[in-house]
Amino acid sequence: MTVMFEAAELGRKIDKKTYKAQLPELRAQLLQAQFALSKTNTPVILMISGVDAAGRGDVVNALNEWLDPRGLQTFAIESLTDEERERPYFWRYWRRLPQRGRIGIFFGGWYVDPIKQVVNEEINEANFEKQLSNVRRFENMIVEDDALILKFWLHLPKEEQRNRLKSHEKDKNAKRLVSKQDWKNHKLYDKYTQAAELAIRHTDTGGAPWTLVESTDSYYRDLTIGQTVLHALQKRLAEHDAKEAAKAAKKEAAANAPVIEVVEPKIIKPKTPQITVLDRVDLDQKLSSKEYRRALEKYQGKLNRLAWAAHHKKRSLVAVFEGWDAAGKGGEIRRMTQAMDSRLYQVISVAAPTDEERAQHYLWRFWRHIPRAGNVTMYDRSWYGRVLVERIEGFAQEEEWKRAFLEINDFEEQLANDGAAIVKFWVHISKEEQLRRFKEREKVAYKQHKLTEEDWRNRERWDEYTAAINDMVARTSTDYAPWTLVAGNDKRFGRIQALKTVCNSLEKVLDK
Amino acid sequence: MTVMFEAAELGRKIDKKTYKAQLPELRAQLLQAQFALSKTNTPVILMISGVDAAGRGDVVNALNEWLDPRGLQTFAIESLTDEERERPYFWRYWRRLPQRGRIGIFFGGWYVDPIKQVVNEEINEANFEKQLSNVRRFENMIVEDDALILKFWLHLPKEEQRNRLKSHEKDKNAKRLVSKQDWKNHKLYDKYTQAAELAIRHTDTGGAPWTLVESTDSYYRDLTIGQTVLHALQKRLAEHDAKEAAKAAKKEAAANAPVIEVVEPKIIKPKTPQITVLDRVDLDQKLSSKEYRRALEKYQGKLNRLAWAAHHKKRSLVAVFEGWDAAGKGGEIRRMTQAMDSRLYQVISVAAPTDEERAQHYLWRFWRHIPRAGNVTMYDRSWYGRVLVERIEGFAQEEEWKRAFLEINDFEEQLANDGAAIVKFWVHISKEEQLRRFKEREKVAYKQHKLTEEDWRNRERWDEYTAAINDMVARTSTDYAPWTLVAGNDKRFGRIQALKTVCNSLEKVLDK
Repeated sequence: MTVMFEAAELGRKIDKKTYKAQLPELRAQLLQAQFALSKTNTPVILMISGVDAAGRGDVVNALNEWLDPRGLQTFAIESLTDEERERPYFWRYWRRLPQRGRIGIFFGGWYVDPIKQVVNEEINEANFEKQLSNVRRFENMIVEDDALILKFWLHLPKEEQRNRLKSHEKDKNAKRLVSKQDWKNHKLYDKYTQAAELAIRHTDTGGAPWTLVESTDSYYRDLTIGQTVLHALQKRLAEHDAKEAAKAAKKEAAANAPVIEVVEPKIIKPKTPQITVLDRVDLDQKLSSKEYRRALEKYQGKLNRLAWAAHHKKRSLVAVFEGWDAAGKGGEIRRMTQAMDSRLYQVISVAAPTDEERAQHYLWRFWRHIPRAGNVTMYDRSWYGRVLVERIEGFAQEEEWKRAFLEINDFEEQLANDGAAIVKFWVHISKEEQLRRFKEREKVAYKQHKLTEEDWRNRERWDEYTAAINDMVARTSTDYAPWTLVAGNDKRFGRIQALKTVCNSLEKVLDK
Repeated sequence: MTVMFEAAELGRKIDKKTYKAQLPELRAQLLQAQFALSKTNTPVILMISGVDAAGRGDVVNALNEWLDPRGLQTFAIESLTDEERERPYFWRYWRRLPQRGRIGIFFGGWYVDPIKQVVNEEINEANFEKQLSNVRRFENMIVEDDALILKFWLHLPKEEQRNRLKSHEKDKNAKRLVSKQDWKNHKLYDKYTQAAELAIRHTDTGGAPWTLVESTDSYYRDLTIGQTVLHALQKRLAEHDAKEAAKAAKKEAAANAPVIEVVEPKIIKPKTPQITVLDRVDLDQKLSSKEYRRALEKYQGKLNRLAWAAHHKKRSLVAVFEGWDAAGKGGEIRRMTQAMDSRLYQVISVAAPTDEERAQHYLWRFWRHIPRAGNVTMYDRSWYGRVLVERIEGFAQEEEWKRAFLEINDFEEQLANDGAAIVKFWVHISKEEQLRRFKEREKVAYKQHKLTEEDWRNRERWDEYTAAINDMVARTSTDYAPWTLVAGNDKRFGRIQALKTVCNSLEKVLDK
């Protein structure tokens, strides 16, 4: 027995009378807190894990009874569906994250698989620790986005676990809850608690703390969990109120301030460094019409074969298209879709988020379109909006877009580890070329809808964008997901460059 | 060869020069139409089906090239995923329907499976026709909700199909497209075309017409389809403009009308019939506290066992809770969730639709929560909102809520045919009892949030609701999905009545 769990074998109990006396007040306060929470930006995640027979199901049922089901969802993660199996591990959790103001209860959660795997020696300890580090990064990412995560580990002494399994077997209502697997697990009790201890130690962070709950006495267990949830909610609500009050005070102060004072806008405008990565792009590169036609045929044929090969080998491709307005992203995407069978790809055109998307972490809307193994997703604009338009227009706070580089690298690493090829294009053109194309669009009837006020506004911020692009490329170019700067002044050259890059990238993952 | 397909073997051709000459204009107009469409309420569904080797993929690729990918999505329906297999057949199509203003291209679509099955003699002709009738009802439902459906059948003579398969086999790029299955299908060509003819005849409706396309010549094929799509879009846009103009004219006329004229609101208020189904509910039924506790234990235990048994037998339960404000729906739901393992159920609390939901048919938001086989979904308010609050508040037009009865019966029939048990509760209380409970809620702190302005407003419309409920129960009580009117004045009696009903319903489907 490890010291950590010894502390959860102290024989803590609450008698039925005390429990019954305290419950009504707890429930009333929980409901009030949940209602207040629904007006905030905080999604709440309650994870109920622990050893078999410790009563995880009873706890989940109790929480379901105490809380208002209208703001609540419970997920019992069982075996992977094939739609989940063919995507990165965390996809199944991303798709189930609660929206802001709602509570999601996870029965088991993302610790179950790693712990099981290490106990059954399917992975070694180094691998286990790596998975825990992924978990920590995942939790950290959503905590920074205002999520409140509470993780509970329900502990039982080994002896008590055996007693419960036995008594369940004798009870006709509970019999079905005991399987051969449970007895196997019971024999592995020590290994299981060791793995759990490691997991808890590695992931017990300030933002997503563990609560170890002695679970021999169910009144103590349920009341402890209920109170822990309540206090965490109340603390978060108090913080929320304090923030709102500070905001209101500041606003009032600003309104009453002497007129002379100039309030500087909070947006930090990137300053353009003298030389940026974009300067390294040789925009004079060109292809003749004949060279283009020949290369197009060659690389489209190649992409067709590679896309099928990747499909059969279950390797995915994620392609990101970013670039200046009118740089020719659409044309490049079309040269790829022309080459591929339409059963194999989808194009996601990123526009304003829907309200379901706004109620989630900003990466959620991209996770939801991650291709199944063997398929292609092309993003026409992408998660890089966070460090481009959202940064420059001030839609994202400074701390938000600054941490986005790391979050994005993490996200792409998960895709790469799952076997996907990742290509990212910044389609570059000169400022003069952009002006020429804008004017052309104004003239051609069926191109008019492609030119908006916003395009002109963005153009005014060319230098700020240049600096942001420079940061983006510098911080998110990784071996597994490198940036390609496309020389787009000559459309033909740009299209072939992009096509070639995709072919090379697919070849590389297929060789692995 | 049937007469229908003979008409598609006339040797129609377009030479390359004509094609190239006509294409730019077609594409420009298609883009303009697509852009105009994006401002309307119309979702567009293009279904590309036909015989093997007729070039369905090429057509889908051409459409992808011609249209703006930002408003487009393509679905290649391949084999069922397990998440799809465990739900009614149309679930996989519902989840993929395009939003209003967008175009969804379905490669194959919902005709593929029935045709395959009848050709391979997995189903007989009667069954085939039944499936076609389901298809027709499905299409009709979304057409009535403003969808534009265009279905294309690409035809090739048998001889031509053989030639193509052979020449594909010789071409290294196309070889992979030809499988043994294709040759098997080729041998069944006559059977296949017969089945297709029947399918086309049975589902060639005004709202979702078929276009038979002679596909030997690819220029003719692509141009025909492009033009058909264009004309349909233009026609729909003209209708849309005419409607908007009529609306504007009416508004103007109203503004200029003499003040004396009273414009009657268009909402038809249901008149309460003298006696309604609700009068048949004996609200005096009561249980003593002792009787209640005994019955609760009995039926919760039973429900627990039945829910597990249903889980193992892969039978689902869909439970709908409707009722007067403060009638006790929540309490009844909780008595059920207490009884069941939280891994087996989810509670969907129906509030205002999200914008993704609003961009779809009103049933879409309920389809998305349909349980997987063996699980339970409880809807706290449901699709019956269409014929209750939406009817009474005028959110749904008269023709919309009137056809909803049929649509809802169809929907529930699909669930029942897929093996689900369906229970529907109207929790009834007297008007006096409601008042008593409203007043109580005002007094108790943690119940205050349960009482809103809207509850008081709804109460004023008690008689209108009574009439609407009477209609609803009369029109949507079916053997597979009967209504249960719960006597809710005594909460104890109501809870037990609901629990018993669910148990009986589960027992019934488990006996089957």
